[in-house]
Amino acid sequence: MASNFFGEIFRITTFGESHGPAIGVVIDGCPAGLEISKEDIDKELALRRPGNNPHTSPRKEEDSIQILSGIFERKTTGAPIALLIKNQDAQPDQYETFKNLYRPGHANFTYLEKYGIFDYRGGGRSSARETAARVAAGAIAKKLLAHFGIECVAFVSEVGGIKIPPQDLSNIKELKQKTHKSPIFCPDPTTEVLILEKIEKVKLENDSLGGIITCIAHLPVGLGDPVYNKLEALLACAMLSIPATKGFEIGSGFEAARMKGSEHNDSFDLDIDGNVHTATNHAGGTLGGISTGSPLIFNVAFKPTSSIKKPQETISLDKEKSILKLPDSARHDPCVAIRGASVVEAMAALVLADRVLANRLVRL
Amino acid sequence: MASNFFGEIFRITTFGESHGPAIGVVIDGCPAGLEISKEDIDKELALRRPGNNPHTSPRKEEDSIQILSGIFERKTTGAPIALLIKNQDAQPDQYETFKNLYRPGHANFTYLEKYGIFDYRGGGRSSARETAARVAAGAIAKKLLAHFGIECVAFVSEVGGIKIPPQDLSNIKELKQKTHKSPIFCPDPTTEVLILEKIEKVKLENDSLGGIITCIAHLPVGLGDPVYNKLEALLACAMLSIPATKGFEIGSGFEAARMKGSEHNDSFDLDIDGNVHTATNHAGGTLGGISTGSPLIFNVAFKPTSSIKKPQETISLDKEKSILKLPDSARHDPCVAIRGASVVEAMAALVLADRVLANRLVRL
Amino acid sequence: MASNFFGEIFRITTFGESHGPAIGVVIDGCPAGLEISKEDIDKELALRRPGNNPHTSPRKEEDSIQILSGIFERKTTGAPIALLIKNQDAQPDQYETFKNLYRPGHANFTYLEKYGIFDYRGGGRSSARETAARVAAGAIAKKLLAHFGIECVAFVSEVGGIKIPPQDLSNIKELKQKTHKSPIFCPDPTTEVLILEKIEKVKLENDSLGGIITCIAHLPVGLGDPVYNKLEALLACAMLSIPATKGFEIGSGFEAARMKGSEHNDSFDLDIDGNVHTATNHAGGTLGGISTGSPLIFNVAFKPTSSIKKPQETISLDKEKSILKLPDSARHDPCVAIRGASVVEAMAALVLADRVLANRLVRL
Amino acid sequence: MASNFFGEIFRITTFGESHGPAIGVVIDGCPAGLEISKEDIDKELALRRPGNNPHTSPRKEEDSIQILSGIFERKTTGAPIALLIKNQDAQPDQYETFKNLYRPGHANFTYLEKYGIFDYRGGGRSSARETAARVAAGAIAKKLLAHFGIECVAFVSEVGGIKIPPQDLSNIKELKQKTHKSPIFCPDPTTEVLILEKIEKVKLENDSLGGIITCIAHLPVGLGDPVYNKLEALLACAMLSIPATKGFEIGSGFEAARMKGSEHNDSFDLDIDGNVHTATNHAGGTLGGISTGSPLIFNVAFKPTSSIKKPQETISLDKEKSILKLPDSARHDPCVAIRGASVVEAMAALVLADRVLANRLVRL
Repeated sequence: MASNFFGEIFRITTFGESHGPAIGVVIDGCPAGLEISKEDIDKELALRRPGNNPHTSPRKEEDSIQILSGIFERKTTGAPIALLIKNQDAQPDQYETFKNLYRPGHANFTYLEKYGIFDYRGGGRSSARETAARVAAGAIAKKLLAHFGIECVAFVSEVGGIKIPPQDLSNIKELKQKTHKSPIFCPDPTTEVLILEKIEKVKLENDSLGGIITCIAHLPVGLGDPVYNKLEALLACAMLSIPATKGFEIGSGFEAARMKGSEHNDSFDLDIDGNVHTATNHAGGTLGGISTGSPLIFNVAFKPTSSIKKPQETISLDKEKSILKLPDSARHDPCVAIRGASVVEAMAALVLADRVLANRLVRL
Repeated sequence: MASNFFGEIFRITTFGESHGPAIGVVIDGCPAGLEISKEDIDKELALRRPGNNPHTSPRKEEDSIQILSGIFERKTTGAPIALLIKNQDAQPDQYETFKNLYRPGHANFTYLEKYGIFDYRGGGRSSARETAARVAAGAIAKKLLAHFGIECVAFVSEVGGIKIPPQDLSNIKELKQKTHKSPIFCPDPTTEVLILEKIEKVKLENDSLGGIITCIAHLPVGLGDPVYNKLEALLACAMLSIPATKGFEIGSGFEAARMKGSEHNDSFDLDIDGNVHTATNHAGGTLGGISTGSPLIFNVAFKPTSSIKKPQETISLDKEKSILKLPDSARHDPCVAIRGASVVEAMAALVLADRVLANRLVRL
Repeated sequence: MASNFFGEIFRITTFGESHGPAIGVVIDGCPAGLEISKEDIDKELALRRPGNNPHTSPRKEEDSIQILSGIFERKTTGAPIALLIKNQDAQPDQYETFKNLYRPGHANFTYLEKYGIFDYRGGGRSSARETAARVAAGAIAKKLLAHFGIECVAFVSEVGGIKIPPQDLSNIKELKQKTHKSPIFCPDPTTEVLILEKIEKVKLENDSLGGIITCIAHLPVGLGDPVYNKLEALLACAMLSIPATKGFEIGSGFEAARMKGSEHNDSFDLDIDGNVHTATNHAGGTLGGISTGSPLIFNVAFKPTSSIKKPQETISLDKEKSILKLPDSARHDPCVAIRGASVVEAMAALVLADRVLANRLVRL
Repeated sequence: MASNFFGEIFRITTFGESHGPAIGVVIDGCPAGLEISKEDIDKELALRRPGNNPHTSPRKEEDSIQILSGIFERKTTGAPIALLIKNQDAQPDQYETFKNLYRPGHANFTYLEKYGIFDYRGGGRSSARETAARVAAGAIAKKLLAHFGIECVAFVSEVGGIKIPPQDLSNIKELKQKTHKSPIFCPDPTTEVLILEKIEKVKLENDSLGGIITCIAHLPVGLGDPVYNKLEALLACAMLSIPATKGFEIGSGFEAARMKGSEHNDSFDLDIDGNVHTATNHAGGTLGGISTGSPLIFNVAFKPTSSIKKPQETISLDKEKSILKLPDSARHDPCVAIRGASVVEAMAALVLADRVLANRLVRL
């Protein structure tokens, strides 16, 4: 059944396979009157683009969006916004050589079992290529959020066990600048160097690394809806829908399981303007699934890239023991978490845009 | 907007506040012909019930379900199943004393900010009392899953930093028996003793503990739908909708971020019957969001109970600095994760029931 | 799959069978702060109640609502509102005598074929009894609409071929008063007399009559959403979901098929306040699926009551030719359209409440 | 909020404006394994195409579909199917001359009031151009229905008051052939001639005509879901979402309001194979919202084309009284009902495809 859409009010529906003619997204539910330019979207896509640094896949995706509908005289009209991204520089032939092997860590086994048919070229629909459509839609969600003074940023906080030191979360603009200056979206230059070294090393080993993306947003009080649309529930769903993700935690997260109530509870206090806020933020910005006004902070765990050049034991479609050996020319990110940052940020923006609009419905 | 429902095909809608006349659930989409008895549901509710051991809240919830519709001659008819649970032994007066204080770790601040009105008695709609309705619905989901040979179990795997050793996941029935024998749903007797000691200690300190629930299910290949209804995305959403949860991870989870691709990838192999399976299960039972046939395994982090008897600094509704001191008679679980186990299991069953039915739609 | 809910923002889910313990409805998505009393709802239910005049079914439904949740200190809280109506004065035994016969015009054949099981007592889930839950929910929708200055009224405009003369639609309050003064919801006293005579006659013949309900609402410009949530599309869906309905038309309706464009088009003009409006209203109050500000006007056709005391040829569940003869004590409306008026009004209110809220989402 | 999608399981989302670069549709939820060719879709689009006879708009829409995703080796894969139709032969300049006038019978007034912005070129999103995307999606729905032996046909049964005599509904294939042979989709040649004469006459008058489309389908027992997804409710919604429609009736429809129960009730009988069926079919193929196995039959009323060359009084955007005079070169159907036939058929197919799949979910 329909499962390629996300969001209730600000709803996206994505389509397209890695090696088909194009991928794209329809955004249904964006309010009228929002100024949008092709450049706004292309700029976000550029961040996700592989090949713009030596540490992501060298596939050249000159991802330039085509706006098919929903925008008139540079403004949204309330009609659905359709965005198209042509597929270029695909190498379908490369996939012919191992199309009959189940690929460890990949979805061809489960897709074939489920559907009985699979467009194996580049991973077809299961390819991370689909996330470009999310990033494009996220660009529009971010414009909407900006209208309401809401901003979010996602950055690399850990790769291969190397962790970033605690960051100042009070200035999102600055954090964003630092993040975007880094080829690996790591706002701390010292950590960046260490991670880059680690990545170089693992590439030589024909292996790959996992990582953690941290996402921060500054929100007003009141976003998120009880009891099944809690803000963290929607975010968790959004994040675990991103390929290669294995975990989600908000605020203190798994560490909360080791704390006492007296340590974990965030006392209420008055801020400098006399407004109620929480003195600490173990909660990570929500209580009862609704934003508190303190910074939203959550982490997303990415597994190491499944496509590695090391030979791997596997089984063929006709049930023979086999070895999967990717060609030397194969192009894969040594650490998918890095490009994952832009996707985490886009999905966060989509959730927040949806809930900002939902919040117009709760009072008389 | 509507946000009190969960699931697409097997859909629940819950209602009710902690101290209103009743809570309940409507299950819309259960197939006809499933045998259901009141006892099936009461049995599950009994597991969640507080007060059946000294380590959960002593509130007596003699939760006995009333079936209002959807079942005829002991079988489901395809019509919506409405289940009602009367509220009893509520102590609304107790909440009068601190109804004007923002409660740390609780939702009265965010509900009041969002809605401008709040039924503060017992936490109203934000109370964990709502989860009884989930457990009741989960009982029916489990009956449906049993029809398809699917079983799941959730157990306490960590409390206050004390971790259970690795369990044998191959026999769910046995694991379930061990779990249900334990007053704290901990299948390992040695760990159980240690945790009980820790709980006793923290109770004397008027404090509380967090914990981790692990959930296991044995599934056929093919459950879960790309790209936004990935099995782990739906589970993450379900779990983070449970009060007091802070994190979700599947398979290797956050640990995956520290692994290499060659370590993390699960090789494909043939099992003893010549079927394709994965030799290891770092993935935790899914690839591309679709079940692989290997055991589904995921963890859910619970924060320590927010209601503690230790005095806490806070702010009043009229913005005065105040101290929240719960009365000695206040009844709260020292560790909400314990009762959380039954809710995790119920929510997992609801997700799986929904996806088992969704799977009927994917092929011609 | 889930199919017992209606509405997207202001969503109702109904449950219950004719002869079960109770029927009810959960309203999920009503904004907080709306004043609601039990009396508001009971008053609406009283209008639908059978037996309050000799021309509807003599079954005594002392329908008094129980509010289970969502209302605190007489105001909605944003939490789901659950309403329960106990079933009383049911006569299950009466249905035993013909439970093995397919009933002409009834749903036991299709339910049995579809589900393989059927709660035949009183028509089970297919009974018009379910519409009491809609009327209860509609009462709350009407309160919400009143807050926005929107009112609607449904009345009997034709029964057994006897048509009401054109009514003045400019004063809804007055039209409503006239309608509610009539035991058959017919605002024109002369027509009322004729219809009552016709009903008496057909009752003596052990037969029944069909009829048409007309519904009027005064709306602001802008309600309804392109392209699949056009106001008339949602209304048509709502109306055809009412048992015994056979048709829906808006404005000129089927007559439009016989008009020319120059006759049908409503010219734009300025009203006395200098606002743009349509000089005529063949459209019935919408253009492009969005309300124009002119009165919304639509008709709903009801078939004659299927339960008649005349003997009818049919087939039994074991495929024998048989005669269905209802007992003399059987209680059925001679014309379901009459009670249908309150259901049409309730469903219209539900659609409009949903769209009034949806309209908050369309602009920046 | 999102309102450009239709269907729950077999879900379409359409996008695009009349004079933008393209329109299109994403079909999410089509089962895997269905054979689809571009020709299958183009063939259906050709039926809807204007300009292929003198009685529809002479705009040349060489509508040829581009399949962007979801089909691999000529079969559906379970992934979303995106179809793109480029806009050609648009005449945007023509709309400049009257872009500041509210157009009688059109939606520019309501869109402007609702959204504050409107792509007026060719009616933008409110244009009937959008229905080409429905027809394209309907082509795939029909392929799915054919797999289950279900067929439907829609034909012109009345234009300008000229009615077709009763047709033999037992042979849908034959009825379809006769319908497609006619340039105005009227299966009766005598009526066709009369309607064509009437159309010629009204064109000379610079005026337009309304009409009625009748749709027939042969279905198995059991399609449609109580209580809000009744088959007729979903069909009514689908039909009233088509531009220019004013009414929907199933079976006896509005005529039912003038019948007695003893006349209207369809007796149950045994057919030649000993299966239960209804001896007559006043119901039009459903009981309780579920198909009976008798032919589904419903009518849809279309208003006369709103765009006429006769001068019309109206108001300008700056509230001046004005005259709307379309240029002589303006291209409009003299009777939109004619092309409406293909859209009715497509929407019926979409509803039926959705419900055929929904029916897999109702039993254990």
